[in-house]
Amino acid sequence: VQRLGFGSADVEQPAPLQAVRLPPPRVESPYSSSVADRIRHAYGRSYPDTIRALRGHFEHPPDAVAFPASEVEIEAALEWAASANVAVIPYGGGTSVVGGVEPIVPDRFDGVLSLDLSRMKRVLEVDEVSRSALIEAGANGPELERQLATRGLTMRFYPQSFELASLGGMIATRAGGHFATLQTHIDELVQAIRAIAPAGEWESRRLPGSGAGPAPDRLLIGSEGTLGVIASAWMRVRARPASRASRAVAFDSFAVGAEAVRVLSQSGLNPSNCRLVDGLEAEMTGLGDGGGALLVLGFESGDDGYPVQALLTRALAICAAHGGRAEPPAGTPAGTADASRSGGEPSRRDGSPAGSPAPGGDPNGGGHDAVSGWRAAFLAMPYLRDALVQCGVLCDTFETAVTWERFPAFHESVLTATRESLPQPRRVSCRLTHVYADGPAPYYTVLAPARRGHELEQWQAMKVTASDAILAGGGTITHHHAVGRDHMPWYERQRPQPFALALSAAKSALDPAGILNPGVLIG
Amino acid sequence: VQRLGFGSADVEQPAPLQAVRLPPPRVESPYSSSVADRIRHAYGRSYPDTIRALRGHFEHPPDAVAFPASEVEIEAALEWAASANVAVIPYGGGTSVVGGVEPIVPDRFDGVLSLDLSRMKRVLEVDEVSRSALIEAGANGPELERQLATRGLTMRFYPQSFELASLGGMIATRAGGHFATLQTHIDELVQAIRAIAPAGEWESRRLPGSGAGPAPDRLLIGSEGTLGVIASAWMRVRARPASRASRAVAFDSFAVGAEAVRVLSQSGLNPSNCRLVDGLEAEMTGLGDGGGALLVLGFESGDDGYPVQALLTRALAICAAHGGRAEPPAGTPAGTADASRSGGEPSRRDGSPAGSPAPGGDPNGGGHDAVSGWRAAFLAMPYLRDALVQCGVLCDTFETAVTWERFPAFHESVLTATRESLPQPRRVSCRLTHVYADGPAPYYTVLAPARRGHELEQWQAMKVTASDAILAGGGTITHHHAVGRDHMPWYERQRPQPFALALSAAKSALDPAGILNPGVLIG
Repeated sequence: VQRLGFGSADVEQPAPLQAVRLPPPRVESPYSSSVADRIRHAYGRSYPDTIRALRGHFEHPPDAVAFPASEVEIEAALEWAASANVAVIPYGGGTSVVGGVEPIVPDRFDGVLSLDLSRMKRVLEVDEVSRSALIEAGANGPELERQLATRGLTMRFYPQSFELASLGGMIATRAGGHFATLQTHIDELVQAIRAIAPAGEWESRRLPGSGAGPAPDRLLIGSEGTLGVIASAWMRVRARPASRASRAVAFDSFAVGAEAVRVLSQSGLNPSNCRLVDGLEAEMTGLGDGGGALLVLGFESGDDGYPVQALLTRALAICAAHGGRAEPPAGTPAGTADASRSGGEPSRRDGSPAGSPAPGGDPNGGGHDAVSGWRAAFLAMPYLRDALVQCGVLCDTFETAVTWERFPAFHESVLTATRESLPQPRRVSCRLTHVYADGPAPYYTVLAPARRGHELEQWQAMKVTASDAILAGGGTITHHHAVGRDHMPWYERQRPQPFALALSAAKSALDPAGILNPGVLIG
Repeated sequence: VQRLGFGSADVEQPAPLQAVRLPPPRVESPYSSSVADRIRHAYGRSYPDTIRALRGHFEHPPDAVAFPASEVEIEAALEWAASANVAVIPYGGGTSVVGGVEPIVPDRFDGVLSLDLSRMKRVLEVDEVSRSALIEAGANGPELERQLATRGLTMRFYPQSFELASLGGMIATRAGGHFATLQTHIDELVQAIRAIAPAGEWESRRLPGSGAGPAPDRLLIGSEGTLGVIASAWMRVRARPASRASRAVAFDSFAVGAEAVRVLSQSGLNPSNCRLVDGLEAEMTGLGDGGGALLVLGFESGDDGYPVQALLTRALAICAAHGGRAEPPAGTPAGTADASRSGGEPSRRDGSPAGSPAPGGDPNGGGHDAVSGWRAAFLAMPYLRDALVQCGVLCDTFETAVTWERFPAFHESVLTATRESLPQPRRVSCRLTHVYADGPAPYYTVLAPARRGHELEQWQAMKVTASDAILAGGGTITHHHAVGRDHMPWYERQRPQPFALALSAAKSALDPAGILNPGVLIG
């Protein structure tokens, strides 16, 4: 807050649990209707969610919460819900930032059941030869990584919500991981899915690749709980990193840095990390002075003879040709920093206070330079966000993807429109989180003074303005945050109209009573 | 034929066109019903197609053939067909080997219209900054590459059918290209699609990536003409290769070579070429003596500083650790063969006789060693096949993908079952055409003496046996040859049952009269 220059020293405390009044459950069910369970499943983790939870406002909690421990129990819950005319919202880690798990459903339903999969968290089977593992949908990042580590394997997929987000939720929302190229979305890691739809069990074949008809699992991936409940999935896993090289590169401006990233993205080098942070964001995270831009560049492989150094050298040469200045590999003797062979996965933040420095060990290895500064900021951000909200700071992020040709004008228009929708002094910063040969995925962070009691209107005005600018500029309403309830108006404008018809028809076939997460994806 | 030791010196000549008797067209239409057009659209390029065409047997030709030159003309054709109760089969290059374009449709239709897109073959727009091009669906490989070359770009996607296959056909069938890793299927190159469905125009947004709902275009990709007619697509293109390195590596056995390929596939090296050919196939193509196995390994990039040599060196070290013996880079001075900087795209085979050596210039660069030997065989095979058929040789290929853990037993069982379904002396050989970290895509070639007049029964027995063995062993009925009419029984067993319901419902929404390629994908 001091660094921002706005926000209040008067830290708002969360409403005490006993002061919260919930509407009574509308249905009797064999499942939990405890106040604690209903509250815990009422929201995701968006800014409006955080504000409302902080104030103790819970207008639409689920009427009941089920905790199935098996596919049979999922089926039973779906059958009960259909017979009771109750909508079902599959619930993983509860990290949706787009209203994906909020129990707002059409009036025709007599209630809402939140279907919490957290009891289904086992790694059921590992095929070391094919580098694959069958993992239950409720396992969160640390849980699945801990079980895979006993076999020397890792899924190596680190969304910012890693510590809470569940595998099923990642698949249902097409989550984005920390790899900047190639396996950017969870989509690429899915080998096969088992899911329970009201119309039957979905079991796809374990296949490394197939050309037999439209890819079946691609219909479930991104379906956000509307077509079936993902129970488990065979995931592509890998050896822990054995070779790594990384470096930070400074540019005079974000635009110049973006041009270097474009050339990198079209080189075939496929860096595992290639994040370009603008000056404002670098300053916020303590990495810069507010000018220029910083690129964090890294390569890794589970193969201990992988030529990371040759790839990094070429990538740095491309940056240099675009005016990039590679920072010295600080804190370690020259010649070793670029090719460390340490392991290092994120450790859990058990009990550490919000806003504290990120845990040691993280997705991209050790070190104490700008590279690790970025890593710390990346992992700490969700916790820092909650603290800022309590201090009266309107704090949100949104992200998109757009082609390179459109990017400069797009970025200018999204930045300008978003800034103008917010009260002074506001800060709208940007980083490129993922990059493709045909365009970047820019990620925007918004900070502004909140007007206490009017945060939701403020947020809504910003969200509408930013989303309109994204659509008008040729971007997608989301690159990896999903659609949920918040993005529906723009999603409906964005998708091909015949696809809306096809999706709606597919839903009617798989979920004839329409009980699965109604209001999301299918209008 | 001499090398095979079977087949006849009595080369069967194709039936003369004037001797062919076609059933009369069942409907009057504004389109062509000439004998030549109807014959030319009656079959694809499978072995049974070739046999029947050779004998002049055309039982199910289309009743009419339309050649639309625009989206408006596609729409008009669909409207006419719906009003006349006529089925429509979208037709690109006619290279289906699975009965995908054969006009066998349910009796409820009054006729069949083949919708030939060959007049729509322009590159309409190029976005050099985003490395993307808008290409009409009817453009075949050489046509689209010739137009892209004027801008210094290439799609660099070479299925064996490259010279005839159309872009729309590649997308509709999820074609496989020559890259062994990463962009193995056309799926990855599709940025956006324009298609005409009876229910409306499909236009997806040009996006480098998106997480907004299930990926819309993934429903059209692989839909084999059943959901809409692909009119054009924005495709991801690239710079012509500026750096290349390749080498052939010999192994004592196919099994040992496959184990080396598995380790390569899990290394993150992502070679552009990584084809393992068994001894029998190496002998057939003049590359070996029938023993052992040969791996063709290559790296390439459009970036002229790309460290191809470092990547190849590491890949060769992995091969050596598995007993692989790298062949000397023959025909060129040491030190230059591994990093040639030549361009080189396939030139057209205008008028060259079937079975003649492959054209100069090809997907993987120059040279005169085992590497280029493989290339020559790859491109010449479709032409050689027709010649063998005329000599009384039963000649077919089929392909699949399976996880590495299952591969050894799978391969043994598919080989044995296929061999035993064929008369002596038969040859069933294998190569791995594409590889993934979780499994290979094996491609089988079948050669056996044909019993003249009974080829279709012989082929059917082999096809059923091989396909049953593939399904039983955990493979896919096709990795990149599509489903068509030939693979339907196994496709129906393979896909998740709820997906069949969803696809069928989607089709009813997009194609209410069910006129689009009936009998394919949707049972």
